[in-house]
Amino acid sequence: MRSVFDINTLIRDDLKTLIPYDAPAYPDIIRLADNENPYDFPAEVTNQIFQSIFSQDFNRYPDTNAVKLREKLSAYTGVAPENIMIGNGSDELILTVMLAFGAGAAFAVATPTFSMYGIHGRIALSRELKVPRLEDFSVDVKSLIKTAAKPEVKIVVICNPNSPTGNAVPLNIIEEILANTNAVVVVDEAYGEFGGETSTPLLTKYPNLVILRTFSKALSMAGMRVGYLLARGPVMTELLKAKPPYNINSFSQAAARAVIDNLPLFQERVRKILADREYLFSAMAGLPGIEVFPTETNFILFRTMLPSEKVYDGLLERGVLIRYLDDPALSRCLRVTVGTGRENEVFLKALDDILKSQI
Amino acid sequence: MRSVFDINTLIRDDLKTLIPYDAPAYPDIIRLADNENPYDFPAEVTNQIFQSIFSQDFNRYPDTNAVKLREKLSAYTGVAPENIMIGNGSDELILTVMLAFGAGAAFAVATPTFSMYGIHGRIALSRELKVPRLEDFSVDVKSLIKTAAKPEVKIVVICNPNSPTGNAVPLNIIEEILANTNAVVVVDEAYGEFGGETSTPLLTKYPNLVILRTFSKALSMAGMRVGYLLARGPVMTELLKAKPPYNINSFSQAAARAVIDNLPLFQERVRKILADREYLFSAMAGLPGIEVFPTETNFILFRTMLPSEKVYDGLLERGVLIRYLDDPALSRCLRVTVGTGRENEVFLKALDDILKSQI
Repeated sequence: MRSVFDINTLIRDDLKTLIPYDAPAYPDIIRLADNENPYDFPAEVTNQIFQSIFSQDFNRYPDTNAVKLREKLSAYTGVAPENIMIGNGSDELILTVMLAFGAGAAFAVATPTFSMYGIHGRIALSRELKVPRLEDFSVDVKSLIKTAAKPEVKIVVICNPNSPTGNAVPLNIIEEILANTNAVVVVDEAYGEFGGETSTPLLTKYPNLVILRTFSKALSMAGMRVGYLLARGPVMTELLKAKPPYNINSFSQAAARAVIDNLPLFQERVRKILADREYLFSAMAGLPGIEVFPTETNFILFRTMLPSEKVYDGLLERGVLIRYLDDPALSRCLRVTVGTGRENEVFLKALDDILKSQI
Repeated sequence: MRSVFDINTLIRDDLKTLIPYDAPAYPDIIRLADNENPYDFPAEVTNQIFQSIFSQDFNRYPDTNAVKLREKLSAYTGVAPENIMIGNGSDELILTVMLAFGAGAAFAVATPTFSMYGIHGRIALSRELKVPRLEDFSVDVKSLIKTAAKPEVKIVVICNPNSPTGNAVPLNIIEEILANTNAVVVVDEAYGEFGGETSTPLLTKYPNLVILRTFSKALSMAGMRVGYLLARGPVMTELLKAKPPYNINSFSQAAARAVIDNLPLFQERVRKILADREYLFSAMAGLPGIEVFPTETNFILFRTMLPSEKVYDGLLERGVLIRYLDDPALSRCLRVTVGTGRENEVFLKALDDILKSQI
């Protein structure tokens, strides 16, 4: 008989301090925290999905290769189906890339950026080498290339446009990085429909390019978890080894296909969000004690003169949830998603209220 | 400027020989290959799911903690909600367990068994130590405990009832293993609704127990990918670190809740499948040149006098897809899922036909 159970022999030392990603659940709140699209599905698209799913069998495994969805995405992206992989959100694809190339090695990432690269990297036993962005949040290209040259670095991650800073990297910079490293360069275009340039044209020239995309932002599908990845040749071959089978359920596959079939409806909403973003940006820039950073996304990073906890908590008390950032590189910064016109007004009023009450 | 791209510096040596899990897609075939439930959703349950999903927002991220589903599963399993984790199929949960405890270490597994333990283990940088089952496919307890005692072994995996052999391990054997190792013991009860004893009563006594369950088999939900895991205390704490956020989409959460709300409908089908299994088992046992192995699942392992490729291909020509097994420990063996009454008849006739044509 063994002695008393001892968890300490089982815990991974390198995960002892890991804090899991969590999303606080507040009912009945204006959610401007997660860069979701504020507009729910058009009823006609939902009906199309329901009709499509009714003819499918719930009891049968989904198409593990999502053949029909990849064909539709091929027409949308101009990339051949065999160069497209579908993920359970691009979250899962980040983990798949980390497992395929980063495990037991390291990855370089331009920070501050989306926290899941670091979390999935750590979980996948890949060491994170942060390459701080410059003062204006542009990528420190020289430093990134130098770090990528270390033999243990197998992956370079660039979120473009970047969350939470909002800025985009020009295509010639992406190309400069691709041309000067043998590492896999992951360009996460989660916000690509809102601004910046896509790196898709570089795919044919650079076999080390991996592009991530998602249905969760511009395409209103956060609830259904569909992301996709573009890559080719031997890089795709290795990624397929780490891809979990049956990872996208039948409903989400049907939903994503219906979205592609109805793209103009979603593109119209993107235009609306961009117009509202311009309004929100100007209105925030006009508030005393607020510095707004330029954005090519559906969110705005801003710095306040007050401690950011105060602003965050004040907004929460007034029924608005935005994103708190505890990165030291972003001191006194917060991130707000562009909501509906009404949501933006409530946010602006609440922010103004907090600023006034503190002066 | 760098030299020509070289994939060899990026490929993980330990994955060079990995063959990804794949599922051949044959349209218009009788599918008895994947141990799915042959009965699709009752229309009333589908309608409940659609009604429930209509009131939810596609554009918002799903509940990352699946609170409502875990509450329902708590009532179903008798296990507290905080001891339940939901996965994108138990496939994902296998990877999560491997990442949380096995990465950079090793796991022991009673083989032959489900191939995804080995695949996810390898991907997660966990070394696989196979502990062959005895002649009758029962677990070699002494050998498993001895292997688990190696300091590098952090996980022991037992599929119970086991796929593809069909047999179950008695609860006292599971307890003996739990009591004699400090490793996390994963008992995969994917087929638990069809037979064998659940290890759930052992959860309070053994903090190193992890149970996997799925909605994909007895509960007709393979297409929607919902699995769950039962564990407690510090083991659950570590597992939560490796759990991907937002891993279950809103639709699948709603579908799983509706299934739990309508359990009697699904339990009735399980009884039907079990009765059909008895019939199929007897009929196969009566065929010349076929040895059938006892089963507590919704599938039957059988050995043929002919080369198994011949039987597999012959069935395929006759419109029936079953599972080919290329494990040397299962020479001349094949696995067939219990289908509907009609599907079983087509399979039996085809099998009989192949055997007769070869004699």
